[in-house]
Amino acid sequence: MKDFCDLADFSIEEVERLIIQANKLEQRSSMQMLQGKVLALLFLNPSLRTLTSFQASMIRLGGGTFVISPEMSIHGLETRSGVVMDGAAAEHIREAVPVIASYADAIGIRAIAPRNSLEDDLQDEYSKELRSLCDIPVLNLESSIRHPCQSLSDWKTLEDLSIPKQGGKFVFTWVYHPEALPLAIPGDTIHMAASRGMDVTVLRPDGFSLPKEIIDRAELAASLTGGSITQTNDRNNALEGAHIVYAGSWSSTTFYGDYPKDQKARGEYSDWCVDETWFKGITSDPCYFMHALPVRRGVEVEDHILDGARSVVVRQAQNRMFTQMSVLLDMLG
Amino acid sequence: MKDFCDLADFSIEEVERLIIQANKLEQRSSMQMLQGKVLALLFLNPSLRTLTSFQASMIRLGGGTFVISPEMSIHGLETRSGVVMDGAAAEHIREAVPVIASYADAIGIRAIAPRNSLEDDLQDEYSKELRSLCDIPVLNLESSIRHPCQSLSDWKTLEDLSIPKQGGKFVFTWVYHPEALPLAIPGDTIHMAASRGMDVTVLRPDGFSLPKEIIDRAELAASLTGGSITQTNDRNNALEGAHIVYAGSWSSTTFYGDYPKDQKARGEYSDWCVDETWFKGITSDPCYFMHALPVRRGVEVEDHILDGARSVVVRQAQNRMFTQMSVLLDMLG
Amino acid sequence: MKDFCDLADFSIEEVERLIIQANKLEQRSSMQMLQGKVLALLFLNPSLRTLTSFQASMIRLGGGTFVISPEMSIHGLETRSGVVMDGAAAEHIREAVPVIASYADAIGIRAIAPRNSLEDDLQDEYSKELRSLCDIPVLNLESSIRHPCQSLSDWKTLEDLSIPKQGGKFVFTWVYHPEALPLAIPGDTIHMAASRGMDVTVLRPDGFSLPKEIIDRAELAASLTGGSITQTNDRNNALEGAHIVYAGSWSSTTFYGDYPKDQKARGEYSDWCVDETWFKGITSDPCYFMHALPVRRGVEVEDHILDGARSVVVRQAQNRMFTQMSVLLDMLG
Repeated sequence: MKDFCDLADFSIEEVERLIIQANKLEQRSSMQMLQGKVLALLFLNPSLRTLTSFQASMIRLGGGTFVISPEMSIHGLETRSGVVMDGAAAEHIREAVPVIASYADAIGIRAIAPRNSLEDDLQDEYSKELRSLCDIPVLNLESSIRHPCQSLSDWKTLEDLSIPKQGGKFVFTWVYHPEALPLAIPGDTIHMAASRGMDVTVLRPDGFSLPKEIIDRAELAASLTGGSITQTNDRNNALEGAHIVYAGSWSSTTFYGDYPKDQKARGEYSDWCVDETWFKGITSDPCYFMHALPVRRGVEVEDHILDGARSVVVRQAQNRMFTQMSVLLDMLG
Repeated sequence: MKDFCDLADFSIEEVERLIIQANKLEQRSSMQMLQGKVLALLFLNPSLRTLTSFQASMIRLGGGTFVISPEMSIHGLETRSGVVMDGAAAEHIREAVPVIASYADAIGIRAIAPRNSLEDDLQDEYSKELRSLCDIPVLNLESSIRHPCQSLSDWKTLEDLSIPKQGGKFVFTWVYHPEALPLAIPGDTIHMAASRGMDVTVLRPDGFSLPKEIIDRAELAASLTGGSITQTNDRNNALEGAHIVYAGSWSSTTFYGDYPKDQKARGEYSDWCVDETWFKGITSDPCYFMHALPVRRGVEVEDHILDGARSVVVRQAQNRMFTQMSVLLDMLG
Repeated sequence: MKDFCDLADFSIEEVERLIIQANKLEQRSSMQMLQGKVLALLFLNPSLRTLTSFQASMIRLGGGTFVISPEMSIHGLETRSGVVMDGAAAEHIREAVPVIASYADAIGIRAIAPRNSLEDDLQDEYSKELRSLCDIPVLNLESSIRHPCQSLSDWKTLEDLSIPKQGGKFVFTWVYHPEALPLAIPGDTIHMAASRGMDVTVLRPDGFSLPKEIIDRAELAASLTGGSITQTNDRNNALEGAHIVYAGSWSSTTFYGDYPKDQKARGEYSDWCVDETWFKGITSDPCYFMHALPVRRGVEVEDHILDGARSVVVRQAQNRMFTQMSVLLDMLG
């Protein structure tokens, strides 16, 4: 494996093999297959799960990690091209990234969407530029528009729960959040569910439709697997027969990058908070609740759901470690 | 071993076996008994010795650690139960802790006393709640009222120095410090010395008596080992015949949680700073000086003591590593 | 090897042996020679390359590191001697350093020049004091006046590029930088090039001559190897026949420690930014560009040089890892 930057770069057979390998790794207590190997972790945005799960993954495999963040350089890292560096930043990403990569066997990079321009974010230019600075395998730890580590982990979670592929109903619902969040999770998650052959419904208020580029990509995946993609604002129809309710929030796509207008638009839907009433009348049993975390309790979802039997959010997070170990083994083993 | 959260959970024989094992580990140069094992370290308060000694311990045993602190999550970790998370914090400890635990083989947690209510701190509720979120072994890295890693290390230091058990005189003295510090170190230290069978004197100004709950617990330990517990404000009597003078500071127990009144009360005793005059007339020779660190030079104790022959503070700190390795080996080996 | 604090402590034969060992380590993919060994890294100033290259080095050799910085202690680490610690800092370096050292097999320390007094910085007192607190091998990660890890790495880079020793021309040029930087890099770099037998020219504006102590030390090295040291402000003469142009910036030595005057003095030379015109008429081919990083693009050097064929700055940085592994192997193997 060269890079792991987009789950769509892999065939369904390859994804399934990675998950089977993750299942085997989950059963083993000691592994030293990556003895002395070094994974660099560059976080241009904060992280808790991704950081710690990769650190744990490499220790378990006998290697190790080092972490870089802009705060480590004097006054931060400059990222703009062609700039005269007479301001605060004392170091440019064009030296920092190749140098860091030269110490490591692979590098993971997190650079989430700047959320100023929808077009730019959909192009994922920033992530591609960072990737071009590295001559070692790159792991995408969340870019403007992809989060393959989360998607692979969620795929394994669906397998763990024996959720049907064909005929399985996967609802991704927008929920209220005080901030305008990126599109990487909803976009990559529905693509993952479609790639698995599921019937995917995106439930969201008006003004929050996922962009055509994201839907087209998911529909292409669905067309190859017998799945389907639907968008709706009708909660009852959406949830009817659902096996999975996956909650997440994202920026208004109508007012993308316009924070005051986005704030106003989302404020009208502050009652989009998942609680047990959402599951009334769902005939599938059990219907699980998923979320990529972090989650705001009482805002995105009520405590009784998160702490109840439907919730598999900790399992999702734990599967990050097993699936990442599987990817690392392919990449560096 | 399941958890290591209170030294009182272990019999004296068990403690002594842990120390003998620590002595053996101290002699060995290479050990890989915990190859590929992962220790999570959750610090809700800053740390230097505890953090680095656990990191070194796990490297020496062939495994590794990862560290989590509230700063790592976006805008910190929410800790209150049942709260609607529409403020700054984007993540709740109720997800963060189980997720972190799911990546690790054991977890160490530091959550020192909030110091608002004496009753609450004595109950150690916060630490128990955090512990209840983990289904892997938990190490207490200092809770409101316990610091078993420090106590086990100090016990080993007393053995290293061949301080008598029966008939050994152990003085824990309050010293001035500009801040109102927690009760975990004094409370756990006198319990440790009493468990070792020593005659313990708590030397402190009026208004700074250790609470009844702490004294009762130490007296119970003393009653089983032939030791004793005394509190006094009389320095000459207290130090007569002492083998150990252990210095530390704590909040006024009369004005616990009332910072302005505490500040005023402690300010009257700013001359409680250990110097060589304290040791005049002590017949036991040598009489060692102990402190759990960090220590404020010239405020809690004078430089000539810390840099002189009585001081074993670096030895105490180093024994943290050896005794923690011993605990980790029992827990994860 | 006891300490690695000054390249001048080693004979040229010893340096060359370390580089040959580094070359061998560069070729190997897995090494576990320092299994379970612990390197402490104390950074009193920020770091990116030094930190990550040492972390990677220890992982590759089978051991590990832990990192300490003043921010980790409550309100920072006190460094002054004899002070009454009634201010913010809760911990003194006189306890912190020996304790940290007691957990490790070796300790690396970064304490760059305070830049208040030229005389004090040239004496390197602060670094010597820190070193005196440790009873384990010490690695100098940049002191007031030495940076042996960078020098050893640069020496290897010159070997990698087959730059001639006798008759090789090495130009160290001052370049503009908005801040008054320390003398460690220029001073140690010209000493390294002289020790290698090269003809060294220091190119700098008036008011920025390197101090007599630094020149004398480099001249002594040159006298033993057949090299030479020249200082000039004449760019054309300096660059004629150069094999290497090594750029760096440093404080005005005329106004050392006087920041406003230094600022004014350096401001007059803001056009000292390396571009391709500097290399016109240089007959040696190729003439490489070196820099210890971090570098300010468009200020110290233009993008077309850094991104062009002359630049070996990433190679220099990567060699940090291989040469440090070589030193660690001698020190701890």
